[in-house]
Amino acid sequence: MAMSRRGEFGFIDFIRSNFPDPEGTTGIGDDCAVIPSGEGELLFSTDLLMEGVHFLRNESSPEDVGWKAAAVNLSDIAAMGGTPVATFLSIALPKDAQGEWADRFIEGYTDISRQFDVPLLGGDTTSSLRDIAVNVGVLGRCPSGRRLMRNGAKVGETIYVTGPLGDSTGGLKAILMGIERTEDVTRLICRHKRPIPRIEAGRILMESGKAGAMMDISDGIGSDLRHIMKASGVGAVIDLERLPLSPELVSVCKEQGWDIYEMATSGGEDFELMFTAPAGLENELDIAVYPIGKIVSGNELSWRFSNEPMDRDFDGYKHF
Amino acid sequence: MAMSRRGEFGFIDFIRSNFPDPEGTTGIGDDCAVIPSGEGELLFSTDLLMEGVHFLRNESSPEDVGWKAAAVNLSDIAAMGGTPVATFLSIALPKDAQGEWADRFIEGYTDISRQFDVPLLGGDTTSSLRDIAVNVGVLGRCPSGRRLMRNGAKVGETIYVTGPLGDSTGGLKAILMGIERTEDVTRLICRHKRPIPRIEAGRILMESGKAGAMMDISDGIGSDLRHIMKASGVGAVIDLERLPLSPELVSVCKEQGWDIYEMATSGGEDFELMFTAPAGLENELDIAVYPIGKIVSGNELSWRFSNEPMDRDFDGYKHF
Repeated sequence: MAMSRRGEFGFIDFIRSNFPDPEGTTGIGDDCAVIPSGEGELLFSTDLLMEGVHFLRNESSPEDVGWKAAAVNLSDIAAMGGTPVATFLSIALPKDAQGEWADRFIEGYTDISRQFDVPLLGGDTTSSLRDIAVNVGVLGRCPSGRRLMRNGAKVGETIYVTGPLGDSTGGLKAILMGIERTEDVTRLICRHKRPIPRIEAGRILMESGKAGAMMDISDGIGSDLRHIMKASGVGAVIDLERLPLSPELVSVCKEQGWDIYEMATSGGEDFELMFTAPAGLENELDIAVYPIGKIVSGNELSWRFSNEPMDRDFDGYKHF
Repeated sequence: MAMSRRGEFGFIDFIRSNFPDPEGTTGIGDDCAVIPSGEGELLFSTDLLMEGVHFLRNESSPEDVGWKAAAVNLSDIAAMGGTPVATFLSIALPKDAQGEWADRFIEGYTDISRQFDVPLLGGDTTSSLRDIAVNVGVLGRCPSGRRLMRNGAKVGETIYVTGPLGDSTGGLKAILMGIERTEDVTRLICRHKRPIPRIEAGRILMESGKAGAMMDISDGIGSDLRHIMKASGVGAVIDLERLPLSPELVSVCKEQGWDIYEMATSGGEDFELMFTAPAGLENELDIAVYPIGKIVSGNELSWRFSNEPMDRDFDGYKHF
């Protein structure tokens, strides 16, 4: 790849200097990365982000794109209750993104990788005619047979989430509408740009042995819950008034006249975990979890408010 | 992703129907793929192909792009002496490549995956504004401590390759120049469009315990050998008259007046393996290997013809 400032090998050297190889592994520089096999099962997930579809160069800082590219993949490992072992980064850069944009992207990617202590062990750098493309792959591990899938929900279980819903979509809406950046608005925007993968929460839930099904919330519970329902062959009822909402989102929605339940159910990219477990789990764990509904028989998703059925559906973020 | 013909989930269902999950693994459909950890060491490699840089939509059939996207990654596993376990495919499609282009791409990807018995266990599908982007990741395995790296070459070893050099670049040149498609030319073009990853040869060489360093030839020996030299801290001498050349390349070069040694040393994408080992190995293996030179002390790469030093350098395929 032709890098404007110091060439492809200079860019790779910069990445390598940020990511020394952990003991016993071989990262960047040979035909493949080499990693000890270890115990249990391997988990793997990958996401491809395209400029113009997943981010706009003039609206996202390169550091934020780098953070988020890693975050969404680490969140997939969290969603199974796994521990991330390594990431692999492929990046295609048009001429005008080589140099500063690329370096700043790596800074954001390095930030989150260090925060969660996950090495980058390989990848690919290449040029692109027009659009930036970023693919992240993440390898994780989980004790054999313990990973939490989408197909484990059982009738009678309570549905939980690990944190407030709708903040990310509130932040995105604030950016798109250009509203004033109050402290509350700034916090929502931060939740949108720098999502936190709930790796620790996922691991605790896996180790508890209590959870039936689990996934991360990327498209809003109105969409994501249907994946659990379909995979598990069950229905669900959600009590809207129990959805955890951040004080910031409550106040901004009030000021702006936004529909907070629409945002909390159909807004994407919160990257909290949603899982099913016996009732009462909220009193048994060292982390906060919020009961929001119940798994029922059938295959319908219904919504209630103060125990009253609602004549309305919330069906999640639309990709197109 | 919006697919013009039957939507994103229809496309994913098509991929799934081509790739049933092997016993004990969980592929497409949850947050992560789940794979038994198994014995030995894990290998991982990934490559990102961009339309307009790595292929042109009006010059490569979608099937060939699909084949090659998998082939170049499987070749990286072969280059370590490993066995591929699974691939992961991310694909970003602009509107006019959704539907037929995408389906035909998957046909080519499926062809090579079946030929080498490697399951596709996960990935990502998304839309793209303009350019097609394809990222393949491949996971492999190798018995602990046995994988062949670039840094294992020792002074006095012979340098070998596993097959003819220059055919792929000959095929590419034939396409670009639009020369008549004789039988010979067609064979060269096929070597360019449908490269064969040398997985079996790599495994045999790993098991032989004889090879020092190994890698696959993607940029021509004039470039790739320098990676082995740098990683191993050695020099090398190549005897041009010993380079294995296909009868097709010899005849086409003669007809067209092309410089066959330039092509054999500096042409990319042959995806044969290059390795170092004690002299005489060509008589000990069940596969054909061709001695082409020697590892020497120092850090220079020099070229000879009939034992005479040449006042000329061949330095491999230039990416930019």
